[in-house]
Amino acid sequence: MTQTYGYLGPAGTFTQMALHRWGLPDSAQERAYPSVDGALKALRDGEIVGAMVPIENSVEGGVSATLDALAHGDPLVVIGEVLVPITFVLAAREGTSLQDVRRVGTHPHAWAQVRRFVAEQLPEAAYVPALSTAAAAQALAEDSDAPFDASVSAPVAATTNGLTILADDIGDIKGAVTRFVLVARPGALPARTGADKTTVVLFQHHDRPGALLELLEQFAVRGINMTRLESRPTGVSMGSYCFSVDFEGHVLDERVGEALVGLKRVCLGVRFLGSYPRADEVETHVPAEISDEAFQSARAWLEDLRGLSG
Amino acid sequence: MTQTYGYLGPAGTFTQMALHRWGLPDSAQERAYPSVDGALKALRDGEIVGAMVPIENSVEGGVSATLDALAHGDPLVVIGEVLVPITFVLAAREGTSLQDVRRVGTHPHAWAQVRRFVAEQLPEAAYVPALSTAAAAQALAEDSDAPFDASVSAPVAATTNGLTILADDIGDIKGAVTRFVLVARPGALPARTGADKTTVVLFQHHDRPGALLELLEQFAVRGINMTRLESRPTGVSMGSYCFSVDFEGHVLDERVGEALVGLKRVCLGVRFLGSYPRADEVETHVPAEISDEAFQSARAWLEDLRGLSG
Amino acid sequence: MTQTYGYLGPAGTFTQMALHRWGLPDSAQERAYPSVDGALKALRDGEIVGAMVPIENSVEGGVSATLDALAHGDPLVVIGEVLVPITFVLAAREGTSLQDVRRVGTHPHAWAQVRRFVAEQLPEAAYVPALSTAAAAQALAEDSDAPFDASVSAPVAATTNGLTILADDIGDIKGAVTRFVLVARPGALPARTGADKTTVVLFQHHDRPGALLELLEQFAVRGINMTRLESRPTGVSMGSYCFSVDFEGHVLDERVGEALVGLKRVCLGVRFLGSYPRADEVETHVPAEISDEAFQSARAWLEDLRGLSG
Amino acid sequence: MTQTYGYLGPAGTFTQMALHRWGLPDSAQERAYPSVDGALKALRDGEIVGAMVPIENSVEGGVSATLDALAHGDPLVVIGEVLVPITFVLAAREGTSLQDVRRVGTHPHAWAQVRRFVAEQLPEAAYVPALSTAAAAQALAEDSDAPFDASVSAPVAATTNGLTILADDIGDIKGAVTRFVLVARPGALPARTGADKTTVVLFQHHDRPGALLELLEQFAVRGINMTRLESRPTGVSMGSYCFSVDFEGHVLDERVGEALVGLKRVCLGVRFLGSYPRADEVETHVPAEISDEAFQSARAWLEDLRGLSG
Repeated sequence: MTQTYGYLGPAGTFTQMALHRWGLPDSAQERAYPSVDGALKALRDGEIVGAMVPIENSVEGGVSATLDALAHGDPLVVIGEVLVPITFVLAAREGTSLQDVRRVGTHPHAWAQVRRFVAEQLPEAAYVPALSTAAAAQALAEDSDAPFDASVSAPVAATTNGLTILADDIGDIKGAVTRFVLVARPGALPARTGADKTTVVLFQHHDRPGALLELLEQFAVRGINMTRLESRPTGVSMGSYCFSVDFEGHVLDERVGEALVGLKRVCLGVRFLGSYPRADEVETHVPAEISDEAFQSARAWLEDLRGLSG
Repeated sequence: MTQTYGYLGPAGTFTQMALHRWGLPDSAQERAYPSVDGALKALRDGEIVGAMVPIENSVEGGVSATLDALAHGDPLVVIGEVLVPITFVLAAREGTSLQDVRRVGTHPHAWAQVRRFVAEQLPEAAYVPALSTAAAAQALAEDSDAPFDASVSAPVAATTNGLTILADDIGDIKGAVTRFVLVARPGALPARTGADKTTVVLFQHHDRPGALLELLEQFAVRGINMTRLESRPTGVSMGSYCFSVDFEGHVLDERVGEALVGLKRVCLGVRFLGSYPRADEVETHVPAEISDEAFQSARAWLEDLRGLSG
Repeated sequence: MTQTYGYLGPAGTFTQMALHRWGLPDSAQERAYPSVDGALKALRDGEIVGAMVPIENSVEGGVSATLDALAHGDPLVVIGEVLVPITFVLAAREGTSLQDVRRVGTHPHAWAQVRRFVAEQLPEAAYVPALSTAAAAQALAEDSDAPFDASVSAPVAATTNGLTILADDIGDIKGAVTRFVLVARPGALPARTGADKTTVVLFQHHDRPGALLELLEQFAVRGINMTRLESRPTGVSMGSYCFSVDFEGHVLDERVGEALVGLKRVCLGVRFLGSYPRADEVETHVPAEISDEAFQSARAWLEDLRGLSG
Repeated sequence: MTQTYGYLGPAGTFTQMALHRWGLPDSAQERAYPSVDGALKALRDGEIVGAMVPIENSVEGGVSATLDALAHGDPLVVIGEVLVPITFVLAAREGTSLQDVRRVGTHPHAWAQVRRFVAEQLPEAAYVPALSTAAAAQALAEDSDAPFDASVSAPVAATTNGLTILADDIGDIKGAVTRFVLVARPGALPARTGADKTTVVLFQHHDRPGALLELLEQFAVRGINMTRLESRPTGVSMGSYCFSVDFEGHVLDERVGEALVGLKRVCLGVRFLGSYPRADEVETHVPAEISDEAFQSARAWLEDLRGLSG
């Protein structure tokens, strides 16, 4: 049976690029969804076997729609991650020149990343929000009534839509990267590689961030490094947060297992969002005292003590 | 001379409501700006004396544009905060009924907060992004070519634009609140009230979130509670964060001063964004050992020890 | 076969009183040893089944001889504890009056606890060290050449040796208590009572007390209270310490087991010295998040996560 | 006027050796006292200007009499420290051979340090406690009725008393060292050298060692290393402790000052026992963020913030 993978579309988005980088089996198909929510709903409904969605941008930060959609609803898990360098082009229909541009359409995150270019080169241009960078390029190409005369998008979206590139590599920050995750329904865990990450959402018992220190100590006391920490409102009341956390290691590592047990005890809730290989393949440094062997020999010693009655 | 205060416009936004709640002097004027960046630039340029901007929403979380604009550029400080309950209405031109609605215009944050209502009542409706909820209402009223036939906005924006309300209080989460801050150029500190908050941005020395524990201990060891913690990318590289933090107390409090000195020592940078009265007027609980008196008498004791040679 | 219990003798010591308070089986015998080392050697050699020895005094602190003898050599474990109020009498042979006393014999710890009485009532008296308070009383009664003319001891030691009590309850600090422990070779663990203590010796990896914080966090992160902490030199070099620690809970408690595993990982060595019922029978307060149930349900949840492949 | 320094006598003790190592002015005199209490009383009474007393032994641990005498009573401060290698000899009157020895007199601490030698060479010998090692040697030399026929002492005590050395260097642990401190009435602080130590006694507010973690964090958050930690009972009740602590740095160091202010705030009491040069002259490693400059520039920055009104 054909396996279908969803992504945040339309064709030409950075998310589709991430899916291609990940590399699907030859027999697999891909399907574009208009929103992260839509793609994850299709996944939860069993229409697709996986969904590629953006989770974090080196300039704009966490992608709220993804963080929130993973944190609530039927369980989903991350099974892999992809890093994609982000470059933007300003594109228009053939015949439009830079000085003709009056209104620019793009996604708000993209607009935020080209502010300096716009201030210098298009100080008079107005901004028109679009649902995605690729949707802006597509509208410009296909819809003569599109309410803008230029778009900001990935180079591929401009090219595949037959647009002319007016300016290349216009991002304010060179080297910007977006991190995408491949999400699936809970099933087989990805194998341990020694260069793994784990993602969880932590809900605090008490409605005050002071409790955050207690959560962080659960990692620290087992020598575990965090690589991302985002607070997200739970929606219950102002100042009520949950924390979305990535950390080094795999749920099958002893130190990770003990930390998760500790978090489970002290949190109102812990949502496990998967263990998966790091895109950068950097191996986790594991000092002797937090190795699996250290845990196992310490537990054997404890069992000896407890079985003294034997 | 007339004093002018800016806000994230147009007229009818929740931000304007916040400015009115704050209460301007009779002689003051207000001016709408199309973006947070625009309002804060006008403030930095001396065109206005203050700017009201949204900083945190109980459903959607921190407002990135505001957090980033305060964290970088010429120094600005928060001098006050306002909490505004958020309620949304679906509105249209006279004669449009609920079943006629095909396309809905609003700001993305507002759209995210009415998803359930839309899924149940308007499952076929498409979403059209707008620059603000008030701009959507205004466009609907003024522009017969507006690319949507209904808007989601504050009740006041619908009313002042002469629209008909099709559905009232349509937010998915009742009791949603947005927190707005009044920003000014550095000048006189607001007076201590005993119910104060302080806002800072902390830049870590090391490019790893493990250092976060060290930062939090600077608060913990002086008995200071945090009320908000947001990580924000610095834009330098994936995983490089700064932290935007609100905590209880005023920069003139002894315990806050010592914590700031500690943070200044261990961070790459600390940006002070102001001390100001809490909107909820809840007094900070200050146990004896962290009172100003405790610091002052301990320092006097230390001076005695040091001056033993006298 | 008759079971014999040793104690720090001779007859009449506070240690013998502790052994009697503990309550031996009718068939058991008791045997006095001249030193803690001697009693514990006999225990290790299998000559006796248990030894009662002093471990901590509310005035003088830890009993070094006991702490060191338990920390090194073949393993022994504490199986119970007894608290004995300490009261001292000044006693002499019949016919001696208070003003006749020139030289006073007693154990150095006892001498330290009657300094104020001596300073006020016997300012001219010299001190003669003895091996125990009871030995001093016995020598006075039996040895006409004893190098002192009065002794400081427990009332019972004075009485059983036929001495006259010159002054009663002469301790400087009223309410002084000594804690004694019943030591055995490793065997059946005492049953859990909910009011238990556990004793360990912790050897640090690094030759610097900074590492102590790391050790204490192993207790703190599992919500375990310490009731005694003594640093003892390891004898290797100046500043090289081990820590003798009592804490609330039983080795069979989940939280204690996990803390011991953590200590075993981060320490150079951990010596388990037993879990036993508290003499004061005060039940340990166990908040929900550190109960056995919390650990067990968190571990079941972890096993579920790990077995997702099933 | 002649200045007199006291020490724990009699002549020939290790303490006298420490005083000579320290090096007194030519014009100064020395005076032996029979006990630590006696020497410190003379110092408090103004009879002497300084007192050399033992504080810590690498084998036996803290010297309780000294720790307690410094922790209570009129304030005294440590102004210097001396490390003395400890070697023991077995000595007797001329004509006595090793196999003649039946009873050995010495101080209990010394006896504890020669146990292995005694077990192997003098298994039948009885122990007779003496007030000091030197007092045992002296008694053997001067008092034909001395209740022992050999003494354990420093070589110098045997030699100066005309005794014959039966066995040399008989300590169980080679390399044993005792640390002595020169104590004075509060006055001029010793100058900062960059290789300094500070000694304090910390009294906890709450009658539970859990509070210890809070105290240690006051050091940790300012990057200060402890070099000695001893718990001592306060005498009030079982389990009520104070802590005697040595740490790196001088009271005039900024980081030490702030730590002392923090301890003063959270403790029931803090007793300052002096800042003085380390005997081993090892310079304290001071990372940039805890240097005096880091504190001073951070404070200047804070003053700027506070003076924004200016």
